[in-house]
Amino acid sequence: MPAESSNTFDIFLERLLSGEKRAISRAITEVEDETPQAEQLLRKIFPKTGTAFRIGITGPPGAGKSTLTNELALHYRKQNLSVGILAVDPTSPFTGGALLGDRIRMQPAALDDGVFIRSMATRGSLGGLSKKAKDAADILDAAGKDIVIFETVGVGQSELDIAQAADTTVVVLVPESGDAVQAMKAGLMEIADVFVMNKSDRDGANQAVTALKAILQFRVTHEGTEWIPPVVKTIGTSSNGIGDLAAAIEEHRKFEAATGVLRSARTKQLRERIYELVNEHLNANFWTGEREQYIEQNIGEVMNRNLSPYDVAEKLTRSG
Amino acid sequence: MPAESSNTFDIFLERLLSGEKRAISRAITEVEDETPQAEQLLRKIFPKTGTAFRIGITGPPGAGKSTLTNELALHYRKQNLSVGILAVDPTSPFTGGALLGDRIRMQPAALDDGVFIRSMATRGSLGGLSKKAKDAADILDAAGKDIVIFETVGVGQSELDIAQAADTTVVVLVPESGDAVQAMKAGLMEIADVFVMNKSDRDGANQAVTALKAILQFRVTHEGTEWIPPVVKTIGTSSNGIGDLAAAIEEHRKFEAATGVLRSARTKQLRERIYELVNEHLNANFWTGEREQYIEQNIGEVMNRNLSPYDVAEKLTRSG
Repeated sequence: MPAESSNTFDIFLERLLSGEKRAISRAITEVEDETPQAEQLLRKIFPKTGTAFRIGITGPPGAGKSTLTNELALHYRKQNLSVGILAVDPTSPFTGGALLGDRIRMQPAALDDGVFIRSMATRGSLGGLSKKAKDAADILDAAGKDIVIFETVGVGQSELDIAQAADTTVVVLVPESGDAVQAMKAGLMEIADVFVMNKSDRDGANQAVTALKAILQFRVTHEGTEWIPPVVKTIGTSSNGIGDLAAAIEEHRKFEAATGVLRSARTKQLRERIYELVNEHLNANFWTGEREQYIEQNIGEVMNRNLSPYDVAEKLTRSG
Repeated sequence: MPAESSNTFDIFLERLLSGEKRAISRAITEVEDETPQAEQLLRKIFPKTGTAFRIGITGPPGAGKSTLTNELALHYRKQNLSVGILAVDPTSPFTGGALLGDRIRMQPAALDDGVFIRSMATRGSLGGLSKKAKDAADILDAAGKDIVIFETVGVGQSELDIAQAADTTVVVLVPESGDAVQAMKAGLMEIADVFVMNKSDRDGANQAVTALKAILQFRVTHEGTEWIPPVVKTIGTSSNGIGDLAAAIEEHRKFEAATGVLRSARTKQLRERIYELVNEHLNANFWTGEREQYIEQNIGEVMNRNLSPYDVAEKLTRSG
């Protein structure tokens, strides 16, 4: 996307908006690499966003999220809906994040031309991953995908940020993990709109579902509304229960649309985006060479504890 | 710490600086709860910071970090050094973070009066945990602790942020995990100053150490200096190798002091703190009721895609 030629840019934009895979891929790369063109692109496509339905799928490692995501995508394809999948793994290597790309390639949905799959990982660079994932969702949305699925590992703040960008969040658990109690303790219960008990052919599945439902009784109602998350039993490896899962998601979507929750959540997202952009602009406008210089001139005194970081910051912002 | 009485505040400050446990505990709570007094407190104690040596201990779940941290603390106590431990777990419940507090209480170091242990977890509130952990380290530093240890789970960005605030970062691995290769892939190799192969009585420990050392040959040298991270074998449960670990940390400390790495890393931390504070002030000064109002007046048009978040942000910052 060379900046010098607006014509080239327009052609690229057209290809992107018509849903061409290579154009989508390149646009997401621009966002990942934080190129100067990325903001221009996001700005241009913004009017075309807001139509895709966004589903978040999260849960502990090994719960079978990848297989479920894949099955769900194939289910939507049978209904002639186009699907974009963003497999986001902000964790460090210990949970195997680096291998996500390889695993994804082996899924049958990747062979379907109506499904776009992209894996986004930190790759050492770290930071801003949740923002990039949201921008990538905007790209898929503008490119005409009916459904965008975020698949995340569910072990940190970035994943929760992403979950909050989803219209419906599915939390996947498995019978043997005792995750339900753990999930309740740390507030993941509040973000779940639909629960999946995957691998439900295993021992203890029914008891786990019963326990989860019992815990849900204590759940704080979601923004004052009446939605009680259903618990769907699935066996991802044999597509068992995928229809039920899709039905539960659809029911939640209808509920959100009817109660205005969808609109208010999306408004909140856009409001936050404006605040982020203003913050970026304020910083870009503020940092003159002279002000950066002022810090360098005083940092030695801060190291010596004759000045505090608070003093320096105050001096700078007062003079501005 | 009632703001109305500066006398009460001064007495509290005195108790804190003299190292009183209850005062330390209360100060960290102020920081965790983001009370208005927290900044006042941090500002006051800043001149007393900069003397504690800060050690980061990170690694995958189950590597035995907690036991090692504990043994290391007891080792320092025998040398009459006072120790503060911050056990930081920014992960969501699936890795068992919520249980950290209970586990810590069972460690013998907690019974030693020269050791202050505090567990900091997200507890659903999320966000800002690494900043809070650094502020807590400043409190322990000002309260006279000779050593401050950050213990983190090592599966996300917050942990890496915290590791960067440590003077020496110890990465703990175990023989059977194959973590070394994974760690290399995602850049954790760059933050490790000392490696520990814990549970080194297990099968494959020697091979794992050999493999790790082979990988370290390919390590990019740390900021142009010549430090090559040693690999220390420990058996945390029997205190085996703890003396070697302490010696390796001490050697790294001396190296950092001699080469100026310590000073430049700490200068970088303070510079970043100033930038953060300026950013906070810029936002606080910018957001008048009128400007917030402007967003509310236009958010509907953004939802309808007649305006973009970029337009609104630009309008706001141009008028300012």
